[in-house]
Amino acid sequence: MAENCCPHGGNMFAEILKRLRDTGPLVHNITNYVTVNDCANIILAAGGSPIMADDPLEAAEVTAVSDGLNINMGTLSKSRLEAMLASGAKAMETGKPAVLDPVGVGVSLFRKEAAAQLMKAVRFSILRGNMSEILTLAGESGSGRGVDAAENDEEFLDETERAAAFARRFAEKTGAVIVISGKTDIVSDSEKSYLIHGGSALMSRVSGTGCMLSALTAAFAAAVPDQSLAAAAAASAVMKCCGKTAEKRMEETDGTMSFRNYLIDAVSILTPEMLEKGAEYEVRS
Amino acid sequence: MAENCCPHGGNMFAEILKRLRDTGPLVHNITNYVTVNDCANIILAAGGSPIMADDPLEAAEVTAVSDGLNINMGTLSKSRLEAMLASGAKAMETGKPAVLDPVGVGVSLFRKEAAAQLMKAVRFSILRGNMSEILTLAGESGSGRGVDAAENDEEFLDETERAAAFARRFAEKTGAVIVISGKTDIVSDSEKSYLIHGGSALMSRVSGTGCMLSALTAAFAAAVPDQSLAAAAAASAVMKCCGKTAEKRMEETDGTMSFRNYLIDAVSILTPEMLEKGAEYEVRS
Amino acid sequence: MAENCCPHGGNMFAEILKRLRDTGPLVHNITNYVTVNDCANIILAAGGSPIMADDPLEAAEVTAVSDGLNINMGTLSKSRLEAMLASGAKAMETGKPAVLDPVGVGVSLFRKEAAAQLMKAVRFSILRGNMSEILTLAGESGSGRGVDAAENDEEFLDETERAAAFARRFAEKTGAVIVISGKTDIVSDSEKSYLIHGGSALMSRVSGTGCMLSALTAAFAAAVPDQSLAAAAAASAVMKCCGKTAEKRMEETDGTMSFRNYLIDAVSILTPEMLEKGAEYEVRS
Repeated sequence: MAENCCPHGGNMFAEILKRLRDTGPLVHNITNYVTVNDCANIILAAGGSPIMADDPLEAAEVTAVSDGLNINMGTLSKSRLEAMLASGAKAMETGKPAVLDPVGVGVSLFRKEAAAQLMKAVRFSILRGNMSEILTLAGESGSGRGVDAAENDEEFLDETERAAAFARRFAEKTGAVIVISGKTDIVSDSEKSYLIHGGSALMSRVSGTGCMLSALTAAFAAAVPDQSLAAAAAASAVMKCCGKTAEKRMEETDGTMSFRNYLIDAVSILTPEMLEKGAEYEVRS
Repeated sequence: MAENCCPHGGNMFAEILKRLRDTGPLVHNITNYVTVNDCANIILAAGGSPIMADDPLEAAEVTAVSDGLNINMGTLSKSRLEAMLASGAKAMETGKPAVLDPVGVGVSLFRKEAAAQLMKAVRFSILRGNMSEILTLAGESGSGRGVDAAENDEEFLDETERAAAFARRFAEKTGAVIVISGKTDIVSDSEKSYLIHGGSALMSRVSGTGCMLSALTAAFAAAVPDQSLAAAAAASAVMKCCGKTAEKRMEETDGTMSFRNYLIDAVSILTPEMLEKGAEYEVRS
Repeated sequence: MAENCCPHGGNMFAEILKRLRDTGPLVHNITNYVTVNDCANIILAAGGSPIMADDPLEAAEVTAVSDGLNINMGTLSKSRLEAMLASGAKAMETGKPAVLDPVGVGVSLFRKEAAAQLMKAVRFSILRGNMSEILTLAGESGSGRGVDAAENDEEFLDETERAAAFARRFAEKTGAVIVISGKTDIVSDSEKSYLIHGGSALMSRVSGTGCMLSALTAAFAAAVPDQSLAAAAAASAVMKCCGKTAEKRMEETDGTMSFRNYLIDAVSILTPEMLEKGAEYEVRS
């Protein structure tokens, strides 16, 4: 990938969105039952086609006919973990991009061990979480108390540059693109980091914005499977851009559910041109 | 059933909707965890009362106290299949109408075999899917790649008459009413087909419109258990009519989530009179 | 708890809401997959932080790091019951408030026995259901047919005083605060009952308003763990108050899904001042 990202990066994101809309990739999701509907709808809104299947009896077979895989550790179960391992192996075997969202990984030994098992068995294209989840995944200490972006994530991300450097190191170690969501999203491979701005403070008051971003990321990666960094950055740019659009649409009586609806609405009517104009980011390398 | 459907068909649908509202049947759903909330809400919107229960330890008992059964194969699991078989048997034993929605049946051997097992063990009142799902169910080749209405469904349904003839044959073979959803819905028993028009192109951009139609169909069948054809046609007419209403309500900033909300809103405020006026269909026999 | 509730009760509710917003307690939910997203979003809207985890491999560990526990029996499964028992035990051990919502407890032997097992093993802080569910829990005959507030619930609750007396007796027997939802909510310990008015008839036409109230109740109890009665009454007051707000916002084309969105919206923008003014209740002792 040799894009001239600085002047043309928004354009690159727009091109990838266009490609997603044109090709309609099938995205296999093994995800939690809390935000699964939003994940399905945001993939459809972006132009992809979602399929959810989490029984070990069919998971690998579904991955085989899909164009990308999204593994989300929320409401993890023993059976779902088995499906994740089978699908992760199939994704590697068939060269499909795979995204891991280690939801709440710090909350229990079960999730920590499951994450370790997945990281060992599967070469993920992209790892996406909030700062404490990614730190826990990296074996460094995160608060890891809950599943939502915590206050101390913000503290870390005030030190955005430090976080971007960490992301590059973790990308180098894992071979995956690292996405750390927060006030500013950091999207990084071992050499380059995108800092994606925009969004809305309301995003952390709605359940599932992180899960939705992971699902969206898998859809973008499925559209351009050989461009994980660009795909992940494009997905983050779409969420940040649409979060801003959704916030602008809020009226006095509107609250968090309206915001959630407006967010997915915004993705569904986003044009490549709007994304090109609306994407706000910097590049570090 | 000997209605004079051509002049009075819309009226017949209106009568069935009125009956559903008056009797508030309890509808047992064994369904996927992706669109289950929409299914519950659309049953309530139509006037029924939804109950979801999928553990083999209680499934048959729940079916026994319900007025109808909706089996949906999305996010199928081994345990849920066991519950489906137990509930299907109980529905037959107690004379309750049962609907099967073979979501994504072509996607894996597990789903294909589960569908075959269900079709062998249970005499369903109504089978509802998109064209590729129904073709797969019938043992003919469907694309069966995803769970959403595919492009080639449309191609088939351009050949609406051919599809209606196929539906009649499959109805004759199975003894079930066949519902094939698409741009035009085909609702058929072995002798007669309703072609239901209307709806909105946005329906395929929202997750779960097919699942919602199956849930609605089970609610209508539960209201008039001896009139499966009329019940299924009425349910399709409601979805097509409300899809149109929802589309008309869309404003410039609205997207797919607003459409989903408007669709269920429309069902909840639909009166029998509105349905009588709004239903668009033809009959073939 | 020694509040002067009659003149200052609304103020007490406002204080508790303020505390919930200030402390942002983590609420562990083991709940059904039908309304789980609404439960997560309403907890966030109120100021809490939701976490869902239902595998026996991690349930107790998640409870241990949480501030409160919400157990909801909808779509019960054998595995989820095991998690409930483990988390219930951990909540007792660590002094966390625990709420039980016996959804549809009368519908099957499995649910009846599960409820009995939970009631025996766990000392719940708060039990919340509709009248037939609470009657079934108390071993008295309820209709118990479905999971939604039934017609005969209303008949019982016309006899609000009788119901409040029953709630006080059941509270005395169990040591738990009893919440009976209906046209008027009854919130009672062994000595005192709050009768909470307001709300909207539309609340029974939307799936999950009961589940949402239970989730909200757990969030409030987590914010003031030594004040179960006040917490439960405050949660009921919030739902009734916001149900009214949501109903007022309804326009001609709006239906049940808009109402659901408006309800959660209203919780997310409710200020302590609005609650103080909007809460409508009486006290019986």
